[in-house]
Amino acid sequence: MRVWYRVIYGDTDCGGVMYYGNYLRLFEIGRTELLRSAGLTYRQIEEGRGLILPVVEVQVRYKAPARYDDLLAIETRLAEVRPHRVRFEYLVSSEEGRLLATGHTVHAPVNREGRLTRFPEDLLTALQKICR
Amino acid sequence: MRVWYRVIYGDTDCGGVMYYGNYLRLFEIGRTELLRSAGLTYRQIEEGRGLILPVVEVQVRYKAPARYDDLLAIETRLAEVRPHRVRFEYLVSSEEGRLLATGHTVHAPVNREGRLTRFPEDLLTALQKICR
Amino acid sequence: MRVWYRVIYGDTDCGGVMYYGNYLRLFEIGRTELLRSAGLTYRQIEEGRGLILPVVEVQVRYKAPARYDDLLAIETRLAEVRPHRVRFEYLVSSEEGRLLATGHTVHAPVNREGRLTRFPEDLLTALQKICR
Amino acid sequence: MRVWYRVIYGDTDCGGVMYYGNYLRLFEIGRTELLRSAGLTYRQIEEGRGLILPVVEVQVRYKAPARYDDLLAIETRLAEVRPHRVRFEYLVSSEEGRLLATGHTVHAPVNREGRLTRFPEDLLTALQKICR
Repeated sequence: MRVWYRVIYGDTDCGGVMYYGNYLRLFEIGRTELLRSAGLTYRQIEEGRGLILPVVEVQVRYKAPARYDDLLAIETRLAEVRPHRVRFEYLVSSEEGRLLATGHTVHAPVNREGRLTRFPEDLLTALQKICR
Repeated sequence: MRVWYRVIYGDTDCGGVMYYGNYLRLFEIGRTELLRSAGLTYRQIEEGRGLILPVVEVQVRYKAPARYDDLLAIETRLAEVRPHRVRFEYLVSSEEGRLLATGHTVHAPVNREGRLTRFPEDLLTALQKICR
Repeated sequence: MRVWYRVIYGDTDCGGVMYYGNYLRLFEIGRTELLRSAGLTYRQIEEGRGLILPVVEVQVRYKAPARYDDLLAIETRLAEVRPHRVRFEYLVSSEEGRLLATGHTVHAPVNREGRLTRFPEDLLTALQKICR
Repeated sequence: MRVWYRVIYGDTDCGGVMYYGNYLRLFEIGRTELLRSAGLTYRQIEEGRGLILPVVEVQVRYKAPARYDDLLAIETRLAEVRPHRVRFEYLVSSEEGRLLATGHTVHAPVNREGRLTRFPEDLLTALQKICR
């Protein structure tokens, strides 16, 4: 799924480009909107089921800089769904289609007691439907 | 009380200076360390007493820019303590003593139910000792 | 003018609400899009004219917290235009119309040498058209 | 080299822990202070030599959460120095020595024209001295 994001001053740094850490905000937007488009929200998952989905791993490869006021495309897909982890993959591109960054995040479900757990069956099924 | 802060890339923007919103991070550092120096921590206030101290007002006046790798002095004082609100005042200066920004925050105690409340007597007394 | 903003995890803090400093990001989005809707962009002003518009003052009053995944309305108006300063005013509300925060910023034009200057006549006229 | 960092409200998110993107701020602090301890500063490298050192890759593995007011140890080493790239490795631990996160960044020197280049000989030698 693709969402658009406009780079603000607050995203950039004195090198004139988007700060490298702020791509992780883009990734968050990407996966949140991908889940929402499938009828799932983090808020529901967390409040309704007492599950949180912390990031256990992130990787970013920076290909070309994003600059102030650029309109960026964030493309997100759910690349892997397993009972105890999911993996999202991201592409960030300029409005003209130039690839700026790629990355992935891995998330593991954790219960209210802070222990690693498995996705309940219905949620697992819902996630597998998004996965491709 | 004075604390020192080193400006990182992530604090700056493409204008080459510290992003205006990030001064509110400096203010947070200033008031946290002022309280700590008096033996009080936010964490204790919140966990021990079930009080939170949300900001109800902030003002900043920007006099001169802070730049990457500058070492900044944050001077904080507790300027006013009343049963239902406190006011902190801040000065941000360069290492050489040039004034970069001034500001204040006003905080009001809120209880676990999310209602405005008054500081308990002993905490009020402790805050008044810091106030000058 | 009104723009919408979805609160992400990265905007919130461990108090469960949007971090107070991040409202200044919302204000930036508000004034940028107000100018854009009038055919002006910061990037053009800066690159085309060699002017920057640093913030010299900001104030925020926090009325009620914004929470994760809330959809916020940012309403911005240009409240004052003078040759050497402009003032923007902001209202941040929940999707249901509850007022969450109000604020203003004051900006002063600075030239390439870093000196305070006046807006050129045509830009002043363009800004006055947006002002109401 | 080890530097200490105190987690502020502005670093955390509504999950009650440090936001995953903010570890990249910690990594920046770590490598900056490692270079400074060896007599090198980013500012000198950039202003004096016209080189910038953009991040081309970052990876983080999150082991355990960092919480508000935690005092974190950031340990950084320069793990690899080659003419056209350097690699830093990071360990973030709690005050008590519990490992919270590990990661690395890869940086490639870029000249004023925005092209990939090689480190000049003297800088390469200086970097190799830090590498272990």
